[in-house]
Amino acid sequence: MNDLNPADGQLAYDLDRAHVFHSWSAQAALTPLVIAGGAGCDVWDFDGNTYLDFSSQLVNTNIGHQHPAVVAAIKAQADVLTTVAPAHANLVRGEAAKRILARAGSTFGKVFFTNGGADANENAMRMARLTTGRDKILSTYRSYHGNTGAAVVATGDWRRVPNEFARGHAHFFGPFEYRSEFWADSPEQESRRALQHLERVIQSEGASSIAGILIETIPGTAGVLVPPPGYLRGVRELADKYGIVLIFDEVMCGFGRTGGWFAFQSLADEDGPVVPDLITFAKGVNSGYVPAGGVIISESIAQAFEQQVFPGGLTYSGHPLAMASIVGALDAMEAEGIVDNARVIGSDHLAPGLAELAAKHPIIGEVRGIGVFWALDLVYDRESREPVSGVVIGQLKKELMDRGLLPFAADNRIHVVPPCIVTPEEVARALAIYDEAFTAVEATLA
Amino acid sequence: MNDLNPADGQLAYDLDRAHVFHSWSAQAALTPLVIAGGAGCDVWDFDGNTYLDFSSQLVNTNIGHQHPAVVAAIKAQADVLTTVAPAHANLVRGEAAKRILARAGSTFGKVFFTNGGADANENAMRMARLTTGRDKILSTYRSYHGNTGAAVVATGDWRRVPNEFARGHAHFFGPFEYRSEFWADSPEQESRRALQHLERVIQSEGASSIAGILIETIPGTAGVLVPPPGYLRGVRELADKYGIVLIFDEVMCGFGRTGGWFAFQSLADEDGPVVPDLITFAKGVNSGYVPAGGVIISESIAQAFEQQVFPGGLTYSGHPLAMASIVGALDAMEAEGIVDNARVIGSDHLAPGLAELAAKHPIIGEVRGIGVFWALDLVYDRESREPVSGVVIGQLKKELMDRGLLPFAADNRIHVVPPCIVTPEEVARALAIYDEAFTAVEATLA
Repeated sequence: MNDLNPADGQLAYDLDRAHVFHSWSAQAALTPLVIAGGAGCDVWDFDGNTYLDFSSQLVNTNIGHQHPAVVAAIKAQADVLTTVAPAHANLVRGEAAKRILARAGSTFGKVFFTNGGADANENAMRMARLTTGRDKILSTYRSYHGNTGAAVVATGDWRRVPNEFARGHAHFFGPFEYRSEFWADSPEQESRRALQHLERVIQSEGASSIAGILIETIPGTAGVLVPPPGYLRGVRELADKYGIVLIFDEVMCGFGRTGGWFAFQSLADEDGPVVPDLITFAKGVNSGYVPAGGVIISESIAQAFEQQVFPGGLTYSGHPLAMASIVGALDAMEAEGIVDNARVIGSDHLAPGLAELAAKHPIIGEVRGIGVFWALDLVYDRESREPVSGVVIGQLKKELMDRGLLPFAADNRIHVVPPCIVTPEEVARALAIYDEAFTAVEATLA
Repeated sequence: MNDLNPADGQLAYDLDRAHVFHSWSAQAALTPLVIAGGAGCDVWDFDGNTYLDFSSQLVNTNIGHQHPAVVAAIKAQADVLTTVAPAHANLVRGEAAKRILARAGSTFGKVFFTNGGADANENAMRMARLTTGRDKILSTYRSYHGNTGAAVVATGDWRRVPNEFARGHAHFFGPFEYRSEFWADSPEQESRRALQHLERVIQSEGASSIAGILIETIPGTAGVLVPPPGYLRGVRELADKYGIVLIFDEVMCGFGRTGGWFAFQSLADEDGPVVPDLITFAKGVNSGYVPAGGVIISESIAQAFEQQVFPGGLTYSGHPLAMASIVGALDAMEAEGIVDNARVIGSDHLAPGLAELAAKHPIIGEVRGIGVFWALDLVYDRESREPVSGVVIGQLKKELMDRGLLPFAADNRIHVVPPCIVTPEEVARALAIYDEAFTAVEATLA
């Protein structure tokens, strides 16, 4: 936090408003927060105001801000070779792939690297279509898979609607007991009915036309929708029954977020984890320190492209600087027990702390999550479960920011998604801030 | 080139073959070159073999390998803040946008940053569709626009065919006199007939259904197809006549490659440059040192999204490390006259040198290009213009590599695409290597 100059904050703001076009927004009304720097779970502006980052930005800084080992890995690689064409081999790319595969498990054979999560999903869908010779991708309405051509149409939420320029997509409803689409009243019933619904969609779309089922293992931006017991295993069985490639999008939930390396591992049942054919990743793999993503490919799908040309690729596939940041991040996460920390923080601090918060604040309709991946579903009334409006969420964001917490808000929810390195003390501090902010907002609603 | 260990080369190769899935290939037959490091126009392997890089990797290292100013900018930013969510403002992002806009000219208002060229084109097409309320994107058969959903279907070449899962695309033929689709026998006739063809396609597809025309200002991977006089101006006039957004894809040809900041500027006629509504970029903007791309948006299109929500975005939009590399690269290119160097190398060294090469080697059917952006169109016979086979190109690549030149090959062509910093001495060395390699290959054909 040395050498902060408030004038730089004004300059950053002015340049942004003058020249930078922003995502998912009308441009006129934006008043972006200027972030000057960060470390661990903190970020700060040029005036020296510090915020406890319980957003992990876009749920990506799993290792926290400016982890010294990852910064050092980037700087060391910058001195050797920043960029190389993907056709050429490069040592750090192989090292990154080896580490990712070691964590994914023995059924996986190769990694295809991309620039982020959207093109990871694009290439996973491509692999599913080319290996099955089929056309359609099924995905859920409560999902986000990226902003490019096919990824945004695989997406279920409002962002799909103005962007429907891809064909070969159909959508179904996933399980979400709190706002059930299946009139279910227990997790078991929600799971069974959601699977029956999925099978009916498969049959109705025509099983022989379906290349892949693409689901976030735990839908993230849609509300941290931890699947009920039996659901993932049931989806795997349906995929096997109908010869469909199963793709788990672990862009947000992978690499520590759930307290395991992958969410499908964190959700293992007594028979072990439910293993997909393809895993897509980005964000947590290197905490976004350098843009990177990719597809982890099963041995059998990799084998299918030994002789058949894979018709996909990109200039920065396996980019050395990105690969160095992956190696640095994964090694540090392992050496420092960061994934385990996320698990313990979830079970011992966030789960009880957020339950206590909900007991106190009627605006919290449901708390759900795992590891450092939680959502507070906010409602006007616990009976009707009517979601609070954007105005309420806006008030809440302001109350939280005023108290020094950078929140993640989506629809009627606050997502509690700190870095995996978060400490019990930081969680306690955040819980106190949430508590005060809810009290302040509830006062205006009363 | 310190501390090279040949065992690392073997390790890099083995890890690559075991774990890394490659772009645009059947995986079994690959034997990738291992690249350990680079500087300027050189790259080298772990055995200390050095190659003169006349590929610029994938035509992206415009500033050469490991430019110290860009490496320093990356390392300095790595110490401050590697990543930040795009919703927050960040000083270096504004600085990067300002520099890009200053080079593009006064009709442009804002920059939307992406991870690379594919998602730049995705977002440009999105802007065209949303501002016009129309559906279709027209692009040429001889083109490459990226590997994601819509970008790969906008692409004209073979890579589109197994990936046709986007709708709202139609294709037309651009001008290419050497292999004319219009039975033309002069550049002027080629230009006129190509425009007549484009207008007929617009009318036949239905002008009111066409949102955008997306063209590489100079189609690159398709063969460095410098448009004939009058063509770009004619396309601009057709776009205006029919209310169509004109998008120039400058991912490969932008930022110095043609000896100007943008290809459309290098191709200015007596009335000045032909200015598009949207420019897409990646590669040369930071020489690919960190994955980055984007869309440069006209004032009027930016204005359309002041009140209307723009439904596109991505986690790493305006990524600080990428932005720092852009600022570092553009400032160094300006301070060191690197763009001007590319222009002079083109006019004074590559143009005459390649013409001389063609005079000596009948296999060279046509030489075409500008700046440091050239193609040698190789033929069995100058009369029939029959393209040489992949086998011949394979031989030629081997002869060039054996003599220490890393080539760029596409279809029946060798693209002569060194970094913009290339010196007359390096050009002379490369020309001598091309000369020997052509002699060796021609001997096997005779």
